[in-house]
Amino acid sequence: MTAADDRRINTLRFLAVDMVEKANSGHPGLPLGAAPMAYVLWDRFLRHNPKDPAWPDRDRFVLSAGHGSALLYALLHVTGYGLGLEELQQFRQYGSRTPGHPEYGHTPGVEVTTGPLGQGLAMAVGLAFAEHHLASRFNRPDLPLVDHTTYALCSDGDLMEGIGSEAASYAGHLGVHRLVVLYDDNRVTLDGPTSLTFTEDIDARFRAYGWRVAAISDGNDVEAIDAALHSAQEQPDRPWLIRVRTHLGYGSPKQDTAQAHGEPLGPEATRATKEKLGWPLAPNFLVPDDVREHFEQAIPRGAELQRNWQALFDRYRTAEPELAREFDRVTTGGLPADWDRDLPVFPAGSMATRDAGAKAMQALAPRLPEFIGGAADLSTSTRTVFEGMGEFSYTGECGRNFHFGVRENTMVGMVNGMAAHGGVRPYASSFFVFTDYARPTIRLAALMQVPTMLAFTHDSVALGEDGPTHQPVEHLASLRAMPGMVVFRPADANETVEAWRLVFQRRGPSLLALTRQKLPVLDAAQYPAVRAGVARGAYVLADAADGRPDVVLIGTGSEVQLCLGARTQLAARQVRARVVSMPSWELFEDQDSAYRDQVLPPGIPRVTVEAASPFGWERYAGPGGVIIGLNRFGASGPGPTVMEKLGFTVERVVQAAFQAMGRSAPGGG
Amino acid sequence: MTAADDRRINTLRFLAVDMVEKANSGHPGLPLGAAPMAYVLWDRFLRHNPKDPAWPDRDRFVLSAGHGSALLYALLHVTGYGLGLEELQQFRQYGSRTPGHPEYGHTPGVEVTTGPLGQGLAMAVGLAFAEHHLASRFNRPDLPLVDHTTYALCSDGDLMEGIGSEAASYAGHLGVHRLVVLYDDNRVTLDGPTSLTFTEDIDARFRAYGWRVAAISDGNDVEAIDAALHSAQEQPDRPWLIRVRTHLGYGSPKQDTAQAHGEPLGPEATRATKEKLGWPLAPNFLVPDDVREHFEQAIPRGAELQRNWQALFDRYRTAEPELAREFDRVTTGGLPADWDRDLPVFPAGSMATRDAGAKAMQALAPRLPEFIGGAADLSTSTRTVFEGMGEFSYTGECGRNFHFGVRENTMVGMVNGMAAHGGVRPYASSFFVFTDYARPTIRLAALMQVPTMLAFTHDSVALGEDGPTHQPVEHLASLRAMPGMVVFRPADANETVEAWRLVFQRRGPSLLALTRQKLPVLDAAQYPAVRAGVARGAYVLADAADGRPDVVLIGTGSEVQLCLGARTQLAARQVRARVVSMPSWELFEDQDSAYRDQVLPPGIPRVTVEAASPFGWERYAGPGGVIIGLNRFGASGPGPTVMEKLGFTVERVVQAAFQAMGRSAPGGG
Repeated sequence: MTAADDRRINTLRFLAVDMVEKANSGHPGLPLGAAPMAYVLWDRFLRHNPKDPAWPDRDRFVLSAGHGSALLYALLHVTGYGLGLEELQQFRQYGSRTPGHPEYGHTPGVEVTTGPLGQGLAMAVGLAFAEHHLASRFNRPDLPLVDHTTYALCSDGDLMEGIGSEAASYAGHLGVHRLVVLYDDNRVTLDGPTSLTFTEDIDARFRAYGWRVAAISDGNDVEAIDAALHSAQEQPDRPWLIRVRTHLGYGSPKQDTAQAHGEPLGPEATRATKEKLGWPLAPNFLVPDDVREHFEQAIPRGAELQRNWQALFDRYRTAEPELAREFDRVTTGGLPADWDRDLPVFPAGSMATRDAGAKAMQALAPRLPEFIGGAADLSTSTRTVFEGMGEFSYTGECGRNFHFGVRENTMVGMVNGMAAHGGVRPYASSFFVFTDYARPTIRLAALMQVPTMLAFTHDSVALGEDGPTHQPVEHLASLRAMPGMVVFRPADANETVEAWRLVFQRRGPSLLALTRQKLPVLDAAQYPAVRAGVARGAYVLADAADGRPDVVLIGTGSEVQLCLGARTQLAARQVRARVVSMPSWELFEDQDSAYRDQVLPPGIPRVTVEAASPFGWERYAGPGGVIIGLNRFGASGPGPTVMEKLGFTVERVVQAAFQAMGRSAPGGG
Repeated sequence: MTAADDRRINTLRFLAVDMVEKANSGHPGLPLGAAPMAYVLWDRFLRHNPKDPAWPDRDRFVLSAGHGSALLYALLHVTGYGLGLEELQQFRQYGSRTPGHPEYGHTPGVEVTTGPLGQGLAMAVGLAFAEHHLASRFNRPDLPLVDHTTYALCSDGDLMEGIGSEAASYAGHLGVHRLVVLYDDNRVTLDGPTSLTFTEDIDARFRAYGWRVAAISDGNDVEAIDAALHSAQEQPDRPWLIRVRTHLGYGSPKQDTAQAHGEPLGPEATRATKEKLGWPLAPNFLVPDDVREHFEQAIPRGAELQRNWQALFDRYRTAEPELAREFDRVTTGGLPADWDRDLPVFPAGSMATRDAGAKAMQALAPRLPEFIGGAADLSTSTRTVFEGMGEFSYTGECGRNFHFGVRENTMVGMVNGMAAHGGVRPYASSFFVFTDYARPTIRLAALMQVPTMLAFTHDSVALGEDGPTHQPVEHLASLRAMPGMVVFRPADANETVEAWRLVFQRRGPSLLALTRQKLPVLDAAQYPAVRAGVARGAYVLADAADGRPDVVLIGTGSEVQLCLGARTQLAARQVRARVVSMPSWELFEDQDSAYRDQVLPPGIPRVTVEAASPFGWERYAGPGGVIIGLNRFGASGPGPTVMEKLGFTVERVVQAAFQAMGRSAPGGG
């Protein structure tokens, strides 16, 4: 390491230390130990343009160990991302662009939100997938329009979390190209030395997955790091783990102790660290002129990289004008004209909404080549396969179907990464109950507001024989409670089609909860409101003849049919019932109060029906309303039996209607 | 393999096939391929007593691949667990004891509920932990009171799921003893051959974790399986993976295809399979007399095992009468006299509820040696350490503290396994937001109704600088929506103590959500209702002088203080406010309506205050009530700033009170 390298590395180290000190909060340990590898990567390898963080062909960098955010902010500052010193000085303060963990969409140069461990690895794999899909789709001989590498920096926690193992397993299986993970092997976690809990042979484990592994014994050996990154560049045809033995809190009196992980060093230890590493004690937030000058070469270098790419793109546009327009379209996230033209309209009949969803996907796929994805080893049940469109692969032609394996959490994490990359519209699928396994990544999709699309089936106890371990109950409530997530539970095949149409028009994440069992189709002749209704979240599906109902029956999904059945029976008893289908709470809540009062007139008694936890339904049942739900787990048995035994019958809805109206049911039980 | 072995194995195979055929639903593939290993294990190794499935020193068997339930039911039937043929014939029917996936507490001999993949592995590790803790605590020279082995049978899905990797990593790290996992390596998943998604070197991966690995190339080679199990028995000092190459749907026309996984074979393929394996075509559900006679030797064998153990226990009781009483107590789940005598009562002052929880745990630990557990690498933040009580370990003395590592899902899964084993009262801890990572295992605790104890801290956006990735918002709602789970969010140190007291008295799972920040202590002099109030879920903490409030302010956790502050300000404006502290919705809902109406008098305006998603609060806000919550994710910044910026202030509660009363606030904004 030259003295110049050392000064640059120390600049990063002490910017991070000073940020944490000023905030009196944060993680100095990782930056002190990992600054050399970050320096080598950012200074010598990363192809990026600080002045255009949205350049489509930039390399991606993921700080999977998001608690080391101060290091990332230091890098963004010195390389010219326009993150000023005053922002570094506002580290972890309300409203700053330097929050505790890196946040996508909030700070220029932050590719994905990280902090909950392991997810950065999954998203890095997803970023690499998106690159490969786009390269396969757009690159032409001598016109490598898409040709970038995904780098991640991870910690032991990323490798302990199950999602990290899932991501590594799947990346190894596929032999992902142009993916390089630097592992900050500092042997210390928050609770103490890794000897307490994490002593496996990481190198052997990653080799078992099919990765290439390089081990560097001295985290300050920049030339060894440089050589390993060169090797990774030269052999990009499998994922790389570069394990770098570092020292947490390097140079500080707390080096190699858990105290260095997540607490400020404090003034004394800060001084001692600066002295030990030969750094001026003042001023804080020091960036020596020569260091700044050096790092800022990233700006002209980036500008030239992007200029060269732009020149390539200009040649490309001449050679492949149509593809060039497509590239423009998908990288800006637009939809082509007539993208939804082939979406089906279903006539009266009977169809499971999982099958309707499958047909909608098939109808969209040819017009939207960016629509890719797969299921967690349940595609034959979820029906989510693009027929005849091949397997996503690094050997031979790259198709559009992923076989994610029984790995729900990394599946959604990888889809989040693809969605954050841009240029693709990725989806993930499994049984609805297994949203539990993917809960951490679903939350990150909501937090990042990336257009992750989740098509989950087997949406209620009506799935039957698999029993309570496979029957969702609390999942609708728990996803509706999540800010920024839009949940659709369509009542039939046509609502499902509309939901898919809306999903593609959203910028944030969406989830479809679809049935295993067949449901009657609400055909347009009898139910003209369906097409426009779904977009409003809830709408009047069937009304009292005079539009003045005695009672309003609100249903979602398969239970809308129970409401329709009850409406008929109630009519026979001279009760005028309105049926409201409510496929999406969130979209309904976006409507103005006039519309909401029109659909749910204040003062009219209500019944809500959903084969799920009643939690939250008081919002729509209103005072005196009756909520039909499930305050228990399900049971194994044929679906119709389970539904009947658990009380999801037309007769119960009828009784509830009388109860809501404050009357006893004539002839009722 | 002898002809007799073959007949016994085929009996198991075709009981399972016939069950699936009769139900027209289920998974015949695993039983056909894995019956030989199950046979060898159950017939030659498993130490169990079919007539007393609760014998404390029985070996444990976990069918982690719970979809193969028909094989387990066949084993339970032939070995005499009192699961009659008529129950097998009711496979997957509503109300039967043979549900789609094995259910703990529902079918004799089922040790844990399985089906959601990977969790069986985590629980198997937990079962082994409980055995080791009890052996360490109770065994005396020549008196091995606790001396059993945990076996699991797993599938590829169990090894793809992240939780399986976490469990294997931690088990390897600790060098768990007496743990043997049979891996049904059939190379086919629901979606097709494992070559689609799962091609890593499993043996190498497990060796990297520190496991011993045996590989058997022919799943029908019972002597090879026998030899491997013998090796595992002889070298019990590290966990074993016995990988057995099998064929999914062995012997059927669908062998080695995904169709054999989760669908009935159908009449034709069933006939062909029976013919191919030399099995009578009729009757169905055939158990030849000689086979039954052989398997039922498990009954006298089990009786003798238990008799011998009982004789040992009698000698033990003479030698160690006090310990013997303790063994009786912990295995029946009772609490000793005065178990809660040292629980603290806190005087007025200031304390974070995480610290109060820590003090409660320390006070309980000496009187409850069965109280063990740990955190997912956050114990210095969650404060959940039993001081001076050592590390759980297989080398040297076995202490009571686990360092679970950054592995939340397997942590709770292992705790579930320990809780299901009995003899211990295990807890798990992490940040509240990371309940997301453990969501699948928390759900299984609720489904099994085992006394899993979850002590999670950093319960709201008030945790501050770590920002939205670490700040829970929707977690309270999503856990309250889960059937069978009891959530506590105590308002202060004394409520926290009462919550811990209640947690130990529950038979099902509980979760405590505790603060990072300090809160004023509600001392008994000023707030005498606290002690009895927590047990009722909600109670009147501070009232209008005449007990006739103008408005009721309902708070949980840290927001109770905002309600108390608002009450004071409202009093200055001649408004009489009642403050209701509501630490647990579930316990409040268990109260009779008279009590509930007494606490929340119908017709009195209400305000609810919780720094979390408002989802569900309409239940208590009632008509016209005002809900103060958070319809967004949090933000990075100092905790008090974040709370203020997001609207959690006394002033806002005051304004809301006037709003609920339908008045404008005098002098308000």
